[in-house]
Amino acid sequence: MTVHLKDIAAYTGVSIKTVSNVVNGNYEHVGPETRAIVLDAIKKMNYRPNTAARHLRKASVSILAYAFPDLSNPYFTDIGDAIATVAAELKYTVLLDYTFAERDKELNILTGMSPHLLDGVILDSHALNVDDIAEVTASTPIVLLGERLFGAPFDHVLIDNVEAAYVATSHLIATGKRRIAAIGVQTARSEAPSLRLQGFLRAHAEAHIQPDNSLLMDGGLWHRADGARAMQQLLQREQNAMPDAVFCFNDLMALGAMSVINAAGYRIPEDIAVIGIDDIEDGRYASPALSTIAPDKPEIARLAVTRLVDHIKGHASQPPASIMAPFHLQARASTLGRQATH
Amino acid sequence: MTVHLKDIAAYTGVSIKTVSNVVNGNYEHVGPETRAIVLDAIKKMNYRPNTAARHLRKASVSILAYAFPDLSNPYFTDIGDAIATVAAELKYTVLLDYTFAERDKELNILTGMSPHLLDGVILDSHALNVDDIAEVTASTPIVLLGERLFGAPFDHVLIDNVEAAYVATSHLIATGKRRIAAIGVQTARSEAPSLRLQGFLRAHAEAHIQPDNSLLMDGGLWHRADGARAMQQLLQREQNAMPDAVFCFNDLMALGAMSVINAAGYRIPEDIAVIGIDDIEDGRYASPALSTIAPDKPEIARLAVTRLVDHIKGHASQPPASIMAPFHLQARASTLGRQATH
Repeated sequence: MTVHLKDIAAYTGVSIKTVSNVVNGNYEHVGPETRAIVLDAIKKMNYRPNTAARHLRKASVSILAYAFPDLSNPYFTDIGDAIATVAAELKYTVLLDYTFAERDKELNILTGMSPHLLDGVILDSHALNVDDIAEVTASTPIVLLGERLFGAPFDHVLIDNVEAAYVATSHLIATGKRRIAAIGVQTARSEAPSLRLQGFLRAHAEAHIQPDNSLLMDGGLWHRADGARAMQQLLQREQNAMPDAVFCFNDLMALGAMSVINAAGYRIPEDIAVIGIDDIEDGRYASPALSTIAPDKPEIARLAVTRLVDHIKGHASQPPASIMAPFHLQARASTLGRQATH
Repeated sequence: MTVHLKDIAAYTGVSIKTVSNVVNGNYEHVGPETRAIVLDAIKKMNYRPNTAARHLRKASVSILAYAFPDLSNPYFTDIGDAIATVAAELKYTVLLDYTFAERDKELNILTGMSPHLLDGVILDSHALNVDDIAEVTASTPIVLLGERLFGAPFDHVLIDNVEAAYVATSHLIATGKRRIAAIGVQTARSEAPSLRLQGFLRAHAEAHIQPDNSLLMDGGLWHRADGARAMQQLLQREQNAMPDAVFCFNDLMALGAMSVINAAGYRIPEDIAVIGIDDIEDGRYASPALSTIAPDKPEIARLAVTRLVDHIKGHASQPPASIMAPFHLQARASTLGRQATH
């Protein structure tokens, strides 16, 4: 039997308007106790908004949001570009919502704006946890991107981070490198660092190389400056303690590291090879061109948008799933040398 | 005397609802003739929406949009970042609306979404003309950025492009360069190319240097690939026809040009110096670090947001103005050589 707002109102003794406010995430005029009571009832009674009716009511909105943490990282704007392209084919407009990786901003996109302004949200979260997100399931269809919120009851599109890091590290080993540093090893916010470290270590184990733990470097916010700082620390070591290659956990850090290696007069890749992850355009035009792991961004966008639109239209037939998008190794001059074509 | 919607309805013989639709940009159910009649009456009667009333009605929205043409150019995401930061201080959320520089998308942000979803729009237009924008003045407060729509009746924030190009070119001349190429000289969409070319030519004239017109290169979409393509053409010339410096009309093209110069084995800046405009982070970490003209992005954002919020709140006291934001020359190794600090 379908549960309606009025049923929740009757059950909780709260007005329909208040229930509606909670369902729609308008908490401004709802006290925390009332909110908790209503959310509890929503869960107990298994209330689901009438998505077909909502679709009819909102047929003219056709707006999706892509909420992402970091406007200065071209990986996210590449994904935003790809999402906007796929969405346009399906007659949806995409608003880009820049969250600064802040919890309040991420919650706001899920509760403060929806469902009046948005049909659905593609969220690359860097601050929420599974409980946060469970509370807002009633209001807006969501698809997740990235390496957080595993186990949340939503479709989730990402790449296999362990495998990606394994491929990058194995490539460095295949070109003869043995003292490989990793930059970006830190545990805040996302699970990406620990997954990528797993792949890094697995490649070493398979090649029977003992990794040097002193070559595992923190990566701060994973910006260019963080890669540069870590590389500067590595270059201050004595000659025999220096790395002969660096696997940076994203391209931005790799570009920062390369600028420091170039400025110090070392040769890339002969003295120190460099590889990243993300395949941002910046790396293609770097000197030397940056080798990288290239996630299939158009496919990530296609999977996320089509899944989200299925949910919006009430066509989603499968249970929520983690969907692995493809990636490939894009080897360029920063590991293969200047003779490499790029 | 204040003109109300009902006055326009009475004057035109059209229903208030239809007038409201036209004022709010909802043209779907309004025939083109009716629309023209109403727009004509709006102009004749000097109708202005009651912004104070609108502000009361919409006090809880607090959403601004920043509509920009190109997600792959970090200049625009830098500006978006700065706008979001200033707006957050004033308790506004900023939606980033990526227009692909397409006319329909730019119109849509002005008419299709507003005023129900947005309080105001900061628009960096690359496709609209002054007539387009005059039609929608009634519906949403707007501030313009960039080198288009001069003469539109809105506040407009930009840098002095002629002066900026003059400073960049004069810097190359001051470092001893005489055969200076310009990349990005084309006339589509924005007036930036012609303004920057003016500054380029003025610097030559002041230094009594005759510019070589064969060194003025088209710049396509002003992406890295466009700069690389133009530079490849320049390097294919005979030695005495080659440039000794390149002024690229943005940093992205300069980075593309540098990658080609580096790959061909020429030295930057000894053989060919390079300078751009925009001061994107990418250039700071390039090898060598890219000299550039640095617009004051936080100030551009502050001017645009505070002017827009003044309009939204009905506080705007001054007539619409073109406001010049400051910029400065940021000379780095691509013009000063490796000994330059950066």
